[in-house]
Amino acid sequence: MPIVELHLLQGYDDGVKARLGKGLTDAVRFVLPAAPEAVTVMVHEMAAANYYRGGEMRQPAPALPDPTRIVHDYLSAMERRDLPAAQAMLAEGFTMQFPGAAPMTTLEELIAWSKPRYAFVRKTYERFDAMPGNGGAIVYCFGTLHGEWLDGTAFEGIRFIDRFEIAGGKLIRQDVWNDMAEAKAQA
Amino acid sequence: MPIVELHLLQGYDDGVKARLGKGLTDAVRFVLPAAPEAVTVMVHEMAAANYYRGGEMRQPAPALPDPTRIVHDYLSAMERRDLPAAQAMLAEGFTMQFPGAAPMTTLEELIAWSKPRYAFVRKTYERFDAMPGNGGAIVYCFGTLHGEWLDGTAFEGIRFIDRFEIAGGKLIRQDVWNDMAEAKAQA
Amino acid sequence: MPIVELHLLQGYDDGVKARLGKGLTDAVRFVLPAAPEAVTVMVHEMAAANYYRGGEMRQPAPALPDPTRIVHDYLSAMERRDLPAAQAMLAEGFTMQFPGAAPMTTLEELIAWSKPRYAFVRKTYERFDAMPGNGGAIVYCFGTLHGEWLDGTAFEGIRFIDRFEIAGGKLIRQDVWNDMAEAKAQA
Amino acid sequence: MPIVELHLLQGYDDGVKARLGKGLTDAVRFVLPAAPEAVTVMVHEMAAANYYRGGEMRQPAPALPDPTRIVHDYLSAMERRDLPAAQAMLAEGFTMQFPGAAPMTTLEELIAWSKPRYAFVRKTYERFDAMPGNGGAIVYCFGTLHGEWLDGTAFEGIRFIDRFEIAGGKLIRQDVWNDMAEAKAQA
Amino acid sequence: MPIVELHLLQGYDDGVKARLGKGLTDAVRFVLPAAPEAVTVMVHEMAAANYYRGGEMRQPAPALPDPTRIVHDYLSAMERRDLPAAQAMLAEGFTMQFPGAAPMTTLEELIAWSKPRYAFVRKTYERFDAMPGNGGAIVYCFGTLHGEWLDGTAFEGIRFIDRFEIAGGKLIRQDVWNDMAEAKAQA
Amino acid sequence: MPIVELHLLQGYDDGVKARLGKGLTDAVRFVLPAAPEAVTVMVHEMAAANYYRGGEMRQPAPALPDPTRIVHDYLSAMERRDLPAAQAMLAEGFTMQFPGAAPMTTLEELIAWSKPRYAFVRKTYERFDAMPGNGGAIVYCFGTLHGEWLDGTAFEGIRFIDRFEIAGGKLIRQDVWNDMAEAKAQA
Repeated sequence: MPIVELHLLQGYDDGVKARLGKGLTDAVRFVLPAAPEAVTVMVHEMAAANYYRGGEMRQPAPALPDPTRIVHDYLSAMERRDLPAAQAMLAEGFTMQFPGAAPMTTLEELIAWSKPRYAFVRKTYERFDAMPGNGGAIVYCFGTLHGEWLDGTAFEGIRFIDRFEIAGGKLIRQDVWNDMAEAKAQA
Repeated sequence: MPIVELHLLQGYDDGVKARLGKGLTDAVRFVLPAAPEAVTVMVHEMAAANYYRGGEMRQPAPALPDPTRIVHDYLSAMERRDLPAAQAMLAEGFTMQFPGAAPMTTLEELIAWSKPRYAFVRKTYERFDAMPGNGGAIVYCFGTLHGEWLDGTAFEGIRFIDRFEIAGGKLIRQDVWNDMAEAKAQA
Repeated sequence: MPIVELHLLQGYDDGVKARLGKGLTDAVRFVLPAAPEAVTVMVHEMAAANYYRGGEMRQPAPALPDPTRIVHDYLSAMERRDLPAAQAMLAEGFTMQFPGAAPMTTLEELIAWSKPRYAFVRKTYERFDAMPGNGGAIVYCFGTLHGEWLDGTAFEGIRFIDRFEIAGGKLIRQDVWNDMAEAKAQA
Repeated sequence: MPIVELHLLQGYDDGVKARLGKGLTDAVRFVLPAAPEAVTVMVHEMAAANYYRGGEMRQPAPALPDPTRIVHDYLSAMERRDLPAAQAMLAEGFTMQFPGAAPMTTLEELIAWSKPRYAFVRKTYERFDAMPGNGGAIVYCFGTLHGEWLDGTAFEGIRFIDRFEIAGGKLIRQDVWNDMAEAKAQA
Repeated sequence: MPIVELHLLQGYDDGVKARLGKGLTDAVRFVLPAAPEAVTVMVHEMAAANYYRGGEMRQPAPALPDPTRIVHDYLSAMERRDLPAAQAMLAEGFTMQFPGAAPMTTLEELIAWSKPRYAFVRKTYERFDAMPGNGGAIVYCFGTLHGEWLDGTAFEGIRFIDRFEIAGGKLIRQDVWNDMAEAKAQA
Repeated sequence: MPIVELHLLQGYDDGVKARLGKGLTDAVRFVLPAAPEAVTVMVHEMAAANYYRGGEMRQPAPALPDPTRIVHDYLSAMERRDLPAAQAMLAEGFTMQFPGAAPMTTLEELIAWSKPRYAFVRKTYERFDAMPGNGGAIVYCFGTLHGEWLDGTAFEGIRFIDRFEIAGGKLIRQDVWNDMAEAKAQA
């Protein structure tokens, strides 16, 4: 039965409102055992001239980008080695943790590190999970890797998972786990 | 500025309302760039006699357990090898995916599989991430493993991540990634 | 989907709130094609100290009696010829219209008029319909009559319908239609 | 003092909202002894993009026709013997109960039954009463009949009442009472 | 934390809504020790077709003029001796009380009274304070007077305060205090 | 028609809520020409566990004292020369402005200044006007003075007005105007 009312300044497009409608429904169903159709969300929009804090009008800030999209775009840029595009998505202080590597902070380091390990790698995604966290967003994605070892033999079906932290629309941390060492050990 | 009003049947304890208050705040901040103190949540509670759907009164269903707690309890039971306790937390159709293993469905299988791999293992958690998903909850936890190999040498600092799906308060799927193979390869 | 919120002063019992919950649901479904379970009613109660009109507190007035009950009680009193009880339920200016009779205003008139028509009559109710109207309530009830003619022969299954107007908890008008003349003509 | 708030999807015309405003006011005044001007109804409309159930948008369904109008149109069509128009307003399973007749289900039956009883009949309405009921609407109308007997003599002032049940915008049941037999008996 | 929601018929311009937003914020902060930014006001506007009292639509009345502006305009008209303009702002029954004078009711009286006292006087305002009161508005303004005595010598810095009562947009009472006698005594 | 809803943390007594109810009604009527009984205020109270800002619970702060009472108490203490009581009501930085005097900051100064002017003085109040202002409250009071000159002759009916600014429950500024000089000049 829970009913959620969200009061919002006018000016967000339907996609933003749909993300809010979905997110608030999920937030309720995370705690209460309500069937989906038992959770109602109503978004009440107000003109700026109808909202006052401390007696002053306020302006709506632009909505945040979808963090799943940010991660997806970043991983695509890396796969096609479009380093400028990827670099533009990194926040100041970005760090990466890959299996068996020391923490890295630049894409150049990462590429140098991967060079002796495989010729190329592509991701097949099973699923993205995104949630609010750490004052921004946390995104997980997992699935399998396929590609080519340095000797030209192909590999596929190697499980991986990536975890990203996003703040202010930029990536600030990436953690990677996968079964590459396991695959090599079994090879 | 967003203000969220949640209308709820009476009878949930303060902990449940705090989880809802936090979750709804996060859901808004996931989409809108509002500072935390700019997001207000008001929970309006109603006696059952004050709420009608189709002209009929409804009763509140008990809140769902905190999925982070479920995962934490399960992993603790497994560490201390309390199989009955762990077993009680598994849903019908539970499956596990560990690195380099075929999918497993019983705890006995898992124990048999791990026996030739290490003497014991303990987890140090860096963080739990939980979110609504798949009609239930998804929980990630990650950190490092320490323990003993079969030859009695100790290991520590091996990165791991676990992903769980929970439905109806029970675990239905576990996926595990870690750097054990990497650690062995480097040893 | 319609959601109805009713703001009310505290102090009405659950029966009153259930009548309001049902009535508001019906009022919505009278105009909109919503399934019953798609119409939600929330009753928000306030202490008198939380409600101000013109800056002044107000006290809740007692709920009105159920008009169906009033009509039922009146007709029962008449059937058992408890004239004082029936009389007490009539408003100043009460008038009755029976088939083939001039309008009557007193129970004594009614009894005198019925004496040459039948020995006694009892009602079997098929249904009561009640609704707001004329600043008060309107109640219809219909079903069949059974009883005895003056010559001692029994009758039954004679269709009737009564219409009542109620104001201030008292009956102000009664209109009666039935098939008695039809039955006699066919006899 | 009661205040009613109705949350509704956008798209209903002012006539529909006025019917809802009136109906909700009546529903409150049916239970609480509030003066009309003490009952406030506010209709809050939302764009479809601002309303979510189960996280999904919904579309508003067209409002139901006014049941009083349906009955009025049906009775007019019957008076002028426009059988196709009248027939189109009947639901599957429609039944009629007239004084002294067996239940009838077709207009042809009704016309055959009335032919030996009067040349024609017209209704003068005193009042229509309509209310929600039986998952649809119930309409009463009453007043007097005038017309011509088969022998060409005129009649007038014969009281009648009709009761209709409406579902899905169509008539499903009609019950008729009147003083025709009484009038004939007195003639 | 207090949140104020104001439900209003549509049609007031942004200036009116800003005055309401400011006034409601002040009204809360007059009683509760909330920081300004902790008080939120939301104005919910409704089309006339969405608001019913006693089941009837209502039309919005024009907003009241800002009483500070009325007082300011009146005092300006008096300073430039535009008596018709000033007169037009006075309610029936207007009375004035000046220091050392009997109550006066006409502008002609006032001018006659002031003639033997000074050649002219101008006001420098420090501040206007306006508030609801006596079913209308009360406005205070204070500051200093400058001008010329009858003998042609200038004066300045003489403190004054005026108090006005306003009803229906017109001045009904004026009370004046100042240090003119003090200034003369010290001269 | 305006309807005001105030959402508040639980714990304020009825007197505080009545002050809020009155103040919000006045704030609306200051701008809109609504009859008093056309303005409704509903106070919705919430337990602390039902209110979250930034996902955190908040506690209600004690209501502010009535500023009219503060002024009244201060002026009474001064009349009976209870300097410690009066002193306790002054904020750091308190200043006073009396007719024909330089600004003063201590009660001792004030008493020294008044000594050569009159033997004693008492106030008869016509009215107090209080309003929010300058982040606190502004209080006006006016009426007449009576007392005794130094030569023992009595005076009465001398008009006065005091203006106070209050912040944090303490007096920060007092401005006084009166007709004492006028009275002396006329004597």
